[in-house]
Amino acid sequence: MKTYFSCCCPSLIPSRETARISLLCVLIALYMLAGAALFSSLERPAELKAHQLWERRLRDFSYEHNINLEDLKSLLCHYEEARTAGIRAEQGRALWDIHGAFYFVGTVVSTIGFGVTAPITVTGKALLVLYGLLGCSATILFFNLFLERVITMLSLLIFRCHRRRIKHSGLQGRTSEDDRNEDWKPSVYQVTFILFVAVLLVACGAASLYSVMEGWTYTQSLYFCFVAFSTVGFGDFVSGQREHHEDTWAYQVANCLLMLLGVCCTYSLFNTISVIIKQGFDWMLRTLAWVFDDTVNGQQVQATPSSGHVMMWHYCIRKTLQHGTSAQPPYFICQTDSTGPVHSDPVQCFNESAKNVIRFSGVCHRNQLKELFGDRQSLIYTTNEYGQLSNICNVSALIDCN
Amino acid sequence: MKTYFSCCCPSLIPSRETARISLLCVLIALYMLAGAALFSSLERPAELKAHQLWERRLRDFSYEHNINLEDLKSLLCHYEEARTAGIRAEQGRALWDIHGAFYFVGTVVSTIGFGVTAPITVTGKALLVLYGLLGCSATILFFNLFLERVITMLSLLIFRCHRRRIKHSGLQGRTSEDDRNEDWKPSVYQVTFILFVAVLLVACGAASLYSVMEGWTYTQSLYFCFVAFSTVGFGDFVSGQREHHEDTWAYQVANCLLMLLGVCCTYSLFNTISVIIKQGFDWMLRTLAWVFDDTVNGQQVQATPSSGHVMMWHYCIRKTLQHGTSAQPPYFICQTDSTGPVHSDPVQCFNESAKNVIRFSGVCHRNQLKELFGDRQSLIYTTNEYGQLSNICNVSALIDCN
Repeated sequence: MKTYFSCCCPSLIPSRETARISLLCVLIALYMLAGAALFSSLERPAELKAHQLWERRLRDFSYEHNINLEDLKSLLCHYEEARTAGIRAEQGRALWDIHGAFYFVGTVVSTIGFGVTAPITVTGKALLVLYGLLGCSATILFFNLFLERVITMLSLLIFRCHRRRIKHSGLQGRTSEDDRNEDWKPSVYQVTFILFVAVLLVACGAASLYSVMEGWTYTQSLYFCFVAFSTVGFGDFVSGQREHHEDTWAYQVANCLLMLLGVCCTYSLFNTISVIIKQGFDWMLRTLAWVFDDTVNGQQVQATPSSGHVMMWHYCIRKTLQHGTSAQPPYFICQTDSTGPVHSDPVQCFNESAKNVIRFSGVCHRNQLKELFGDRQSLIYTTNEYGQLSNICNVSALIDCN
Repeated sequence: MKTYFSCCCPSLIPSRETARISLLCVLIALYMLAGAALFSSLERPAELKAHQLWERRLRDFSYEHNINLEDLKSLLCHYEEARTAGIRAEQGRALWDIHGAFYFVGTVVSTIGFGVTAPITVTGKALLVLYGLLGCSATILFFNLFLERVITMLSLLIFRCHRRRIKHSGLQGRTSEDDRNEDWKPSVYQVTFILFVAVLLVACGAASLYSVMEGWTYTQSLYFCFVAFSTVGFGDFVSGQREHHEDTWAYQVANCLLMLLGVCCTYSLFNTISVIIKQGFDWMLRTLAWVFDDTVNGQQVQATPSSGHVMMWHYCIRKTLQHGTSAQPPYFICQTDSTGPVHSDPVQCFNESAKNVIRFSGVCHRNQLKELFGDRQSLIYTTNEYGQLSNICNVSALIDCN
């Protein structure tokens, strides 16, 4: 199943990107169906049992105290209402004092949203939308910067470990320069493993604290850690809400710091796992031969799926070829920037057989390219940060994509 | 405030990256404090009022029906317990039937986590951790792929609009080729604006549906949309939980699709806003002159902050300079790949004055670089995907970073 650049419409050209996102959709849906069946079979009996227990208790109470069931139910409806405003049967700490509100905004900007505290005034609700829009964006930026720094730190750490190992084993003299340079690259698996261990350590440490301070079992505390750190935040367990925590400042600060650290590490872990999943998809798609090797003037050029700009590429290259070009291989395809999401991996854009295609990003202005490539007979495509062709220049004769 | 490569330790070298993440931390903390003060002042009176109202109601009920307050409170404690298992005074639909469980896993993998449904069995809790780890990662991948495609689509759309506008205004003949190529690049502001409009449209449409089907006011529905789409998910409003929704299949499907679309668009919006925030920070840091222009052999080279690998760069370049090099400018700094988070923007790595530094990524193997740059007297740094120097080669004489 192959397509060529002479294909009709850019939006109809299938790409590995389309195949990948479709496959991902299908697999997520299947995963959710399987999860639904599993959780339903596990939790449904407990739900029915809880229903029966509660109804018996309600009937007993009504019989014991000689109260109409309807009256009791109306009280419970009032209680529901009161709960929304933060009232609990077992008195907890105030929700909307300054500490409580700080904890609340923390759960908003991190998108945990336990729901124990939620604004009840209309102004509060409206303000939340505006507040969250900026707050959540800033936190996403923070998470991304944190992830960047984690990778940098890990790279340095693994590099140093690797260098020490080589020195100790006395291999330095024997290994070639290439071996030494190649070996210490941390793989995404290494980074994921280290992050997994970090999340595990933070969760175990935090769970010990929570089980002491909140009176939860260790398992419950671990469950809380996952629910909070992954920003799911059900609100069935919420830390620091008991009345006697009002005065334990050190605990409240530790609670916030642990949550922050946990959320940051878990976000990073999710991102690295998603890279592994993506690699798995790419492998699957390669195996299933759903990827399309396109041909330009007889040169094998694999579609640039992971950059997310394959449509623009196809479109512009097709246009160029329609207009005719006298350029001979090698082709240099340059991308000046890529602000694509975390998984942009330009290196993977071209397969091994496409030796004559080089794609790079940087401040390569047209003049600099000319200077770089001199009078080579080559075709240079440059794209702007959104993958659009901003300059297409045959080094000797510029070609316009329009 | 300037530092030079001769500085002592790589981890102590200040960079724009460090300045940015520190500034971001401080500003987020201030933003949270301001938010806490604001929400506290707004919501605290409502909380106190609700407390008083509820206590009066409880006393009245206890007086009217001649029940001990303690007995009532113990009933309410049982009710709390029952609530965790999904029981409500106002009977809703079953939580753990297959549809309910599907809705539940949807809120888990998207990290919305309303908390109306949460596993109560120990096995369910343990399973959730494993299930969420993979599910959340897969969804993050989906969100990222969605964002990539959105940007691609918008690029194509804006490009076509721009081309049409030029054709209609008859400017084609008059504008220079450069103008035509530069003008139609969509800026991050354009993309953000379009995403903002998209989120607004989805939210308004969904809110109309919810206000009809759930009996909420339009404002409440809009508030629900924001809370759900941003994956905060308080759980004070949850769609599709009423008993009579059991049979409205079309509504349940529409509900899930709207949530999916809303979460995807809002995730993309948060990401583009975070890019704008980052640009703002860069501008601030430039203005405040907190950025350090480093000097290599008299050539101005700005730190590579946005790639997140500044430490490795500094470290290796310093090492190289210590060992001495006969290379003269221009320097070519190549990065073979960047799997950094969404905000990696290599173009911004070097300022305008660093004309002699070119950084690009692609499948530039050492031999290809040699072929590219010929016998130029230049220093070439290449890094692997984690920003580490995998090959440092002076085109005529290779230099090893170790």
